[in-house]
Amino acid sequence: MHEQLNFVIEILGTISFAMSGSFAAMQRRFDPFGVVIIAFITSVGGGTVRDLLLDVPVFWMHDLTMCSVIFVTAIFSMIFKSIEKNFQVTLFIFDSFGLGLFTIIGLQKGLNANLHPVICIVLGTITGCFGGIIRDILLNKIPLIFRKEIYATACIIGGSVFLLLAKFTTLTYSFVQILTILLIVAIRTLAVKYHWEMPKFYVGKENSEM
Amino acid sequence: MHEQLNFVIEILGTISFAMSGSFAAMQRRFDPFGVVIIAFITSVGGGTVRDLLLDVPVFWMHDLTMCSVIFVTAIFSMIFKSIEKNFQVTLFIFDSFGLGLFTIIGLQKGLNANLHPVICIVLGTITGCFGGIIRDILLNKIPLIFRKEIYATACIIGGSVFLLLAKFTTLTYSFVQILTILLIVAIRTLAVKYHWEMPKFYVGKENSEM
Amino acid sequence: MHEQLNFVIEILGTISFAMSGSFAAMQRRFDPFGVVIIAFITSVGGGTVRDLLLDVPVFWMHDLTMCSVIFVTAIFSMIFKSIEKNFQVTLFIFDSFGLGLFTIIGLQKGLNANLHPVICIVLGTITGCFGGIIRDILLNKIPLIFRKEIYATACIIGGSVFLLLAKFTTLTYSFVQILTILLIVAIRTLAVKYHWEMPKFYVGKENSEM
Repeated sequence: MHEQLNFVIEILGTISFAMSGSFAAMQRRFDPFGVVIIAFITSVGGGTVRDLLLDVPVFWMHDLTMCSVIFVTAIFSMIFKSIEKNFQVTLFIFDSFGLGLFTIIGLQKGLNANLHPVICIVLGTITGCFGGIIRDILLNKIPLIFRKEIYATACIIGGSVFLLLAKFTTLTYSFVQILTILLIVAIRTLAVKYHWEMPKFYVGKENSEM
Repeated sequence: MHEQLNFVIEILGTISFAMSGSFAAMQRRFDPFGVVIIAFITSVGGGTVRDLLLDVPVFWMHDLTMCSVIFVTAIFSMIFKSIEKNFQVTLFIFDSFGLGLFTIIGLQKGLNANLHPVICIVLGTITGCFGGIIRDILLNKIPLIFRKEIYATACIIGGSVFLLLAKFTTLTYSFVQILTILLIVAIRTLAVKYHWEMPKFYVGKENSEM
Repeated sequence: MHEQLNFVIEILGTISFAMSGSFAAMQRRFDPFGVVIIAFITSVGGGTVRDLLLDVPVFWMHDLTMCSVIFVTAIFSMIFKSIEKNFQVTLFIFDSFGLGLFTIIGLQKGLNANLHPVICIVLGTITGCFGGIIRDILLNKIPLIFRKEIYATACIIGGSVFLLLAKFTTLTYSFVQILTILLIVAIRTLAVKYHWEMPKFYVGKENSEM
């Protein structure tokens, strides 16, 4: 059952990120194959970097599930483009769930490889954030996660809570998993809703090249 | 003979992409080492990502052939910079050949690793396109392949035709290879000549940050 | 003793690059976690790409030393942000040392893997330069190393001198190591001080997208 839960989590995260990639690409007027490619990179980017770092087989290469899910999601996004305005909130919620889902999956893969808990949090953050970072780089934007919203911060807090609960409580693993995914989604949603921001430290003037 | 053909194909693709990288870097006024580095990254980028994903030894690390070819091509491009105008068309043809050659090589490496045909097409597309994508990222441009010209589309069509011909006809492997490389070159050339474009799906307004 | 020297070199290089990443991120007004992430990527980026290419375990994943050093350095940089002006020169020197230290470490890892000397120089250059390149990409700038200052050039010269001295003289390995690190630092420092530049080769007009 635990395996199945993980699988459902991974599929939902993939759909979420594929949608966020597709919409971002359509905003930049990419052609359909460009949209599919950006959807693909946004979805699998974080997990691919994680698997390369862990030196395990890259998760999307050995069966067609992920590729099919991404392809269908991208097509679906293009067809339903017209209803995008009503979609804005849905899309945000999906993206937040993707973040939570992928962070916890990445963290677990690190634990399975017997890495130090801190390194596992780093891996979880990479899995959650890198797809979006690569998407923003390809669209020639400064990755927003570094500047706005509590994004990486939510991953790091969620990952830490996961490790604490898994180690020091008797809660079942699946329960801890779902709880921390919801925590990440909650932190991000509240942060955006109430304009939470981390305090910032400036140095000199903004670079003129920006 | 088949091995030799593959080798010739790989060298020609490397030269093509090294030239396209060198010229792009010179347009941005990079210094000579910058030009060599961009030529190098453009040439080996796609194949390097492919080999990392496949977890096989990275193709340019175990002998000097590729590095030498790229170095000589970059030097050659800098020397002959003055005749660039007459070069424009040659350069385009070379770039198209690079795309076709690398796509088919990537696809074959996937088949050798017993991956699903669809994943092989993805690998072929990555091999053909990622060098140019990384080049454009380093030059701080939105990778054009997502917006103009039938670029990734040509890879995907060429790769699909390759698989169909290899599976359902009795044509020799080398012949199918050459045929699909020419098909990719033809699609791209005709697309640019006649301004073919894929239909696009817009969402809202162009992002102001662009 | 040689092992220890390598370790000290790696820590110093990590601190140097973590500082340069932190300051760059603060200039762009990133939030504290953004600063930590950019510091992390700048420090470990080059070595991570090197280890992936070599297919050896990624150096920062199996103990906490590097992560801790980077975290403390990033925090330190944020606290001492106010004294940044006086820091400018210190920062430059640190960055130059990071470049020299990482180049030689990368080169040695290539030699340990029995790669051709030229490939080892390429690996050293990647280790020294890629952290800064990825940092600049994330900050949406054209990586400066391609345009200003003798940066990659210093790596390539330093790496070549290392190989020549190690092969054709009887100097001890540690001495050659320190000597070439200082050589790279000296080349870069003098280049910036006296505005040395490589001759450039232009092609046509600067791209309007720039």
